[in-house]
Amino acid sequence: MFGARCLLRALRSCSSAPCPRQRPAARVSVRGALGVQSANGERVKVQGWIRSIRSQKEVLFLHVNDGSSLESLQVVADSSFDSRELAFGSSVEVQGQLVKSPSKKQNVELKAEKIEVVGSCDAKAFPFKYKERHPLEYLRQYPHLRCRTNVLGSVLRVRSEATAAIHSFFKDSGFVHIHTPVITSNDCEGAGELFQVEPSSKIKVPEENFFNIPVFLTVSGQLHLEVMSGAFTQVFTFGPTFRAENSQSRRHLAEFYMVEAEISFLESLQDLMQVMESLFKTTAMTVLSNCPKDVELCHKFLAPGQKIRTYAKKQLSNWGADLHTEHEKYLVKHCGDIPVFVINYPLVLKPFYMRDNEDGPQHTVAAVDLLVPGVGELFGGSLREERYHLLEQQLARLGLTEAYQWYLDLRRFGSVPHGGFGMGFERYLQCILGIDNIKDVIPFPRFTHSCLL
Amino acid sequence: MFGARCLLRALRSCSSAPCPRQRPAARVSVRGALGVQSANGERVKVQGWIRSIRSQKEVLFLHVNDGSSLESLQVVADSSFDSRELAFGSSVEVQGQLVKSPSKKQNVELKAEKIEVVGSCDAKAFPFKYKERHPLEYLRQYPHLRCRTNVLGSVLRVRSEATAAIHSFFKDSGFVHIHTPVITSNDCEGAGELFQVEPSSKIKVPEENFFNIPVFLTVSGQLHLEVMSGAFTQVFTFGPTFRAENSQSRRHLAEFYMVEAEISFLESLQDLMQVMESLFKTTAMTVLSNCPKDVELCHKFLAPGQKIRTYAKKQLSNWGADLHTEHEKYLVKHCGDIPVFVINYPLVLKPFYMRDNEDGPQHTVAAVDLLVPGVGELFGGSLREERYHLLEQQLARLGLTEAYQWYLDLRRFGSVPHGGFGMGFERYLQCILGIDNIKDVIPFPRFTHSCLL
Repeated sequence: MFGARCLLRALRSCSSAPCPRQRPAARVSVRGALGVQSANGERVKVQGWIRSIRSQKEVLFLHVNDGSSLESLQVVADSSFDSRELAFGSSVEVQGQLVKSPSKKQNVELKAEKIEVVGSCDAKAFPFKYKERHPLEYLRQYPHLRCRTNVLGSVLRVRSEATAAIHSFFKDSGFVHIHTPVITSNDCEGAGELFQVEPSSKIKVPEENFFNIPVFLTVSGQLHLEVMSGAFTQVFTFGPTFRAENSQSRRHLAEFYMVEAEISFLESLQDLMQVMESLFKTTAMTVLSNCPKDVELCHKFLAPGQKIRTYAKKQLSNWGADLHTEHEKYLVKHCGDIPVFVINYPLVLKPFYMRDNEDGPQHTVAAVDLLVPGVGELFGGSLREERYHLLEQQLARLGLTEAYQWYLDLRRFGSVPHGGFGMGFERYLQCILGIDNIKDVIPFPRFTHSCLL
Repeated sequence: MFGARCLLRALRSCSSAPCPRQRPAARVSVRGALGVQSANGERVKVQGWIRSIRSQKEVLFLHVNDGSSLESLQVVADSSFDSRELAFGSSVEVQGQLVKSPSKKQNVELKAEKIEVVGSCDAKAFPFKYKERHPLEYLRQYPHLRCRTNVLGSVLRVRSEATAAIHSFFKDSGFVHIHTPVITSNDCEGAGELFQVEPSSKIKVPEENFFNIPVFLTVSGQLHLEVMSGAFTQVFTFGPTFRAENSQSRRHLAEFYMVEAEISFLESLQDLMQVMESLFKTTAMTVLSNCPKDVELCHKFLAPGQKIRTYAKKQLSNWGADLHTEHEKYLVKHCGDIPVFVINYPLVLKPFYMRDNEDGPQHTVAAVDLLVPGVGELFGGSLREERYHLLEQQLARLGLTEAYQWYLDLRRFGSVPHGGFGMGFERYLQCILGIDNIKDVIPFPRFTHSCLL
């Protein structure tokens, strides 16, 4: 795929070179090249995709991006390199010398000695046009290509960085990572409608279950983490969870990621809230300091008003009815548009496993939600009922004693006070980046009527 | 749940103490306590479960474990602390002084000043008996309790450590982490039978699809990673994958974890093999150096003959027929019981996306498997067909052109040579730990006829 002119030129430069062979150019990433402090003619090879091209009389300017950073590397070439294949979207390999750039826009630029078009780009069919900023809704139609835009590139780099930061936070805090199962036979947690799973050949004869019993996609790893918290005092999981809800809202997906933690010998909501706060702050700081330009891009173009605010907390307690999205919004606004912890929900509204506060007529459980501006519920957590007889009563009331005998067992053999929380990872990204629609912070969004690729 | 005697004693020691209040004991993990180099009477609080108890005339020895390490902390207490509730399996909180141990078995021990039984253990009903070593098959019946045994504790700590090491390896190498989807509409990759997914309320009327089309649990994140490798030159994913195969073998699960990577501008299998080798070596070294005792336990009790061997490679090429488990075993044995790369498989045996070697009558594709002793196939990888017309021919041959139009698109817009691999994470753990059955290296194994919890 060498352009003929380009090949000729390469050969020419070869033969005219003095005898000692040139050292082969070292392959560097765009990020690596941009990071060179005082470029001094180092011979390098850069590979990536053309994000922009500008042809002047005698000079050709290319911007090459390889996904290692938001910024592209400026390539300066003799206009003789120009060719029809050298166009927006095509992939190239450029060899040349890294030099100090005369422009203030960048530190370094690559003086091309050789440019190879690796794969051309069918510009007519390519759904993204050069120099056009396409709306996010438009990009969603092209899940196989949208990662090639600046904005999705930034979001996905931030997502990767945040994933790493979350793993590090827990590892540094002494938590053991647990892969809680995706397929589970638990079906009574009441966290919305479930997806059921059967081999495709048997989907029409569901009475013959592959696992002998009906199984579902997990809605939360909590109960499985609680198993582990009978042996490890601090555990966490970070994986996919599912809801078969008929929602196309900007805050819901059928498949999304949750970060969940469970802590043994934990006796107060305050201690739990400290971990939640620390997880949020620590990882957000890491992301902000490791990807400042990616975060800035999102803030600048997507949600100028949504930069991260000073983080503070206020506590409200003993609410009488469940909070709906509107209530959450009102609460957050009322508190001055900052993240708000809401604690101690009425027992009747919450699942069986939450710890009874035994507080008389109000009768609350030790639950906590963290609401954040623009997103609503970001974290949900609680102390768990570790007292055998109280849990048994709850399960009996719901007719679940038999199904949850294993869960009761955890309270029969060395039970400990414990608690935990779950954080919606996509909502966390929405919150950090100020991105309005949850479909834009996950690589391949799944929701009612839509499962592309 | 304070024992009365214990409470009395605590009060007594309180009143007899000189006036200035004692500083509250600092909470430490067992690992933290064991790591204190020259213990000198520091007052600490340790929480965990009793793994052993030995009562002598005047002294009581407890071993307390909290999952932070394989080793337990020895607690030495006055025999007056003894109580019926202080038994194998119960949870305790112990306060006291960390002192140098007179025994050679440990550096430090905890001289108890206060012992609280947090949760007692119903010894009769508890399926694990004190001082007994239960076979792994037996433990499998108790997925909610087996993490409390030494061996599963070690396996799960190693699993957590290996997970972190794998994330670090890729991050340090500049890879972007991608959450490839669990639910997918791709159904033609030919990697065994698929699980189909529908809301549980609609499982009996599958014609009304929640996503408008039939969807399945992913068998691999590869194709979605290839999407990303059109924007990022190095990407990886590490998540659950599924097979609805009717197998109860010691090497197969219906739900298991895969580490998958995809690299753009990659032109040779050798380069790919280098990444595979480096991933395996780097992470195995990290695990071995961070969890030496956990790994040792597995080697000592489970598979004395299976310690990690010197890693080397031999290459065989151009095999005529597909390799079955027996062939793989033979090959590995023939090569001296070391890991073996097998490269260049016949095109007809492999999926449509593998790169055609165009090598005449033999007609192979640039595929590579890494076989390891005791486990068989650990890695599978290939260069991918990046040439539009060749891929189009393959898809047309299989009648898949329409379904994979998006995949062809990736070759229309700035295509690049690329390749990648997948590594079975449970097999990796089996290999490192010498554990025979895959069901023992995953917290909650799922296979035909079995989905406990």
